[in-house]
Amino acid sequence: MIDSALFADFYELTMAQGYWKQKMNTPAVFDMFFRRQPFNGGFSVFAGLAPLLDAIEKFHFSDGDIAYLASVGIFEKEFLDYLSSFRFSGDVWAMDEGTIVFPNEPLIRVHANVIEAAIIEGLILNVINFQSLIATKSARIWLASNRGEIMEFGLRRAQGNDGAMSASRAAYIGGARGTSNTLAAKVFGIPVMGTMAHSWVMSFPNEVEAFDAYAEIYPGKAVFLIDTYDTLDSGIKAAIASGGKLAVKGHGFGVRLDSGDMQYLSGEVRAILDGAGFPQATITVSNELTEEIIESLVLNKAPIDTWGVGTHMVTGGNESSFTGVYKLAARTDGSGALVPTMKFSDNPEKTTNPGVKQVWRLYNENGSVKADVLALAGESFESGKTRRFLHPINDYQSFSFAPASAKPMLSLKMAGGKKQGNQPSLDEIRDLVRSGLGEVDRTYLRILNPHVYKVSLTESLREMKIGFMKSFGK
Amino acid sequence: MIDSALFADFYELTMAQGYWKQKMNTPAVFDMFFRRQPFNGGFSVFAGLAPLLDAIEKFHFSDGDIAYLASVGIFEKEFLDYLSSFRFSGDVWAMDEGTIVFPNEPLIRVHANVIEAAIIEGLILNVINFQSLIATKSARIWLASNRGEIMEFGLRRAQGNDGAMSASRAAYIGGARGTSNTLAAKVFGIPVMGTMAHSWVMSFPNEVEAFDAYAEIYPGKAVFLIDTYDTLDSGIKAAIASGGKLAVKGHGFGVRLDSGDMQYLSGEVRAILDGAGFPQATITVSNELTEEIIESLVLNKAPIDTWGVGTHMVTGGNESSFTGVYKLAARTDGSGALVPTMKFSDNPEKTTNPGVKQVWRLYNENGSVKADVLALAGESFESGKTRRFLHPINDYQSFSFAPASAKPMLSLKMAGGKKQGNQPSLDEIRDLVRSGLGEVDRTYLRILNPHVYKVSLTESLREMKIGFMKSFGK
Repeated sequence: MIDSALFADFYELTMAQGYWKQKMNTPAVFDMFFRRQPFNGGFSVFAGLAPLLDAIEKFHFSDGDIAYLASVGIFEKEFLDYLSSFRFSGDVWAMDEGTIVFPNEPLIRVHANVIEAAIIEGLILNVINFQSLIATKSARIWLASNRGEIMEFGLRRAQGNDGAMSASRAAYIGGARGTSNTLAAKVFGIPVMGTMAHSWVMSFPNEVEAFDAYAEIYPGKAVFLIDTYDTLDSGIKAAIASGGKLAVKGHGFGVRLDSGDMQYLSGEVRAILDGAGFPQATITVSNELTEEIIESLVLNKAPIDTWGVGTHMVTGGNESSFTGVYKLAARTDGSGALVPTMKFSDNPEKTTNPGVKQVWRLYNENGSVKADVLALAGESFESGKTRRFLHPINDYQSFSFAPASAKPMLSLKMAGGKKQGNQPSLDEIRDLVRSGLGEVDRTYLRILNPHVYKVSLTESLREMKIGFMKSFGK
Repeated sequence: MIDSALFADFYELTMAQGYWKQKMNTPAVFDMFFRRQPFNGGFSVFAGLAPLLDAIEKFHFSDGDIAYLASVGIFEKEFLDYLSSFRFSGDVWAMDEGTIVFPNEPLIRVHANVIEAAIIEGLILNVINFQSLIATKSARIWLASNRGEIMEFGLRRAQGNDGAMSASRAAYIGGARGTSNTLAAKVFGIPVMGTMAHSWVMSFPNEVEAFDAYAEIYPGKAVFLIDTYDTLDSGIKAAIASGGKLAVKGHGFGVRLDSGDMQYLSGEVRAILDGAGFPQATITVSNELTEEIIESLVLNKAPIDTWGVGTHMVTGGNESSFTGVYKLAARTDGSGALVPTMKFSDNPEKTTNPGVKQVWRLYNENGSVKADVLALAGESFESGKTRRFLHPINDYQSFSFAPASAKPMLSLKMAGGKKQGNQPSLDEIRDLVRSGLGEVDRTYLRILNPHVYKVSLTESLREMKIGFMKSFGK
């Protein structure tokens, strides 16, 4: 992970010098939230927090970084001296990594002097946006496979080297069982996996020799790639010839399909394997799989055991970014008081929610979640007491509900620039995704056209927001 | 850039042990090529070669990497000893970085013993696929803007930290004038740029105070963000108030629009600026811009001077990967001879072209390009001599042409594992993109529904391919 605080949009630094010269480097509160679910989905997975907190702790300007800034010619020496001793010393509140999350609720809330809070903006968004995108995509793919066996095969199609590394981490959080990326497996402690390439098959005079050679070395792990020349005409026949020799020695085997119609070929191959006496032989498929393709194959009962997913899992496919933003929610006014603030913009959906806020998850009697609510930081929730909750924008949408229980979702993860509490393992984060998905009604988890989860405002927050809008003549 | 040779799909290592145990670590030739143009476009930009060659030179297994592999439990000690001294020692032929390229032609040709060639597969594809995707997207955006002023603003939406860094490099190659990513600007020597954020505006009691404060510090560089509350009702008025004070001191200014309808708002803002006596004040726009949106605004004569492009430029937007693959083209047979090989697969478009090949670019009399041709490595082209060229798959498509000149596109970039020749600067690579786009008929450069450029085979290569297919009963 990058530790240079130059990993920031340049305007953060020009504005920082502005705050510094104006003697305005005073406490501020920023919210990181996202505006809409990716993939036309009903949920997202919050991911990237652990590497983000590590990076914030290390973020600094080296002597070379300061020399570069000096060379730009618009920064004063005294300001550069300030930057040379820069370290983030504020507080970070955040949801637990792996939480199932929804639009417009703060995932991270930063309390710091405005220069410090602004300089980490790009880092926060870069890390969280990407890992949340991929963890969400991975969870969708895992759900589409009926919580099946997903292998992440994306290194070669990922967006650069960290695009591969961070994606392997996030894909595992979301539901992948392991990765083909050997370095990610080492660094993150993720199971490493893989089969064989066409080049292996092509390096031998024929498929049987290629498969025999592989099976001899890896007798318990042979998954034969059978589409190099012709899946049904030669590949599956060679696999059965080689697999037969393995069976004599007490070993199983599998086959992989990497081209052609997966519904048709998996059915034919399954029948041929069964007919040859190998009902235990597994079928793995790969080739530009998406959650939609996987769901269709599963619903149509294609006899597929394992899914190798690359491009779409590690890049998001046709949706390549998560819409996370980082917006000022409170600032210090001329009298030194921390006051709420908000923006409107010319797109209503870009309007923000003002003030220091907590997110509460409201539960039904049976332990399932009902809705999320944004509240002012001081508000609390009483079990069983009916309250009214309001739509963030539309006046005519509200609901009343008496939560069986309510859970505050943001907790203090960094205080005075230092990480707080125990750091969860990757498997604990992954487990939180699975338990979180279990709390949510399955209508929100549908791949196609899911139900929209409610994220509402308390009456107090709604009143503050309306007061703000009136003061701007809206 | 990663230097651990574990940055590879695990099957490369299991297959490598296979080749090693079979005593098959003999010379092989692999082609890196791509299968279709991204973005439904008519061209791509080949990018990423310089960082790739640097990474190949450094690629090795550390002691920790070897210890990790040993822990997996399937690698023999002698093989791990071999890996611990692994360095790529082969030859790399490639196109010049910045070349305009087309599907199915080798962009890179690797000659090495098969283990070395296989272990760098993931690295090659990861680097080239991503940077070529982004350089291509950037060139499309630059063309759509009528070769205008493009600023790359993508750090916060990029796919991880290298997703941002490598994208800044590739976007500059493709046509962006600079980047907001300060670290990328430092590392790659790219112009750094930016305006101001909503949080700056919101940190002051009103927009005029915010703009005045900024203008006081950066009088010659003030670009006021005018959509925080209401672009036409308050933002542009405040910009004119602050800009008027700058004008008195002899400075210009600009405004940025970040929401709303860009066609409508840019026209209104232009008229207001002109009416207030500021015809020189510039208009910058941002907000999820794509080449299609930019082209539409340009064709409709929206008065926009500068474009800030983030998400779509650094991730590819709705097309998030380049379809580059790396396929065996020749192998050493049992007699020790290097022999061509090819794969068929169950998708005809996944069929490869066998043998060691050169790519020739054929030119018309006027210096424009006519077509690209794949030839066997020994073939040469005589100026003015008519030859027949064949479609890679379809028998019924061919054309005859007498090239005014023909240029071999692959040259030796690395010999015995060491880089060869002078390394071009980033600006030289960028210039090559521009001159390459100038050679190509503009029908191939259209954003929507471009003409399809011919990549054909010589008769010799076509004969070899057909012979191969016949030998497999196709």
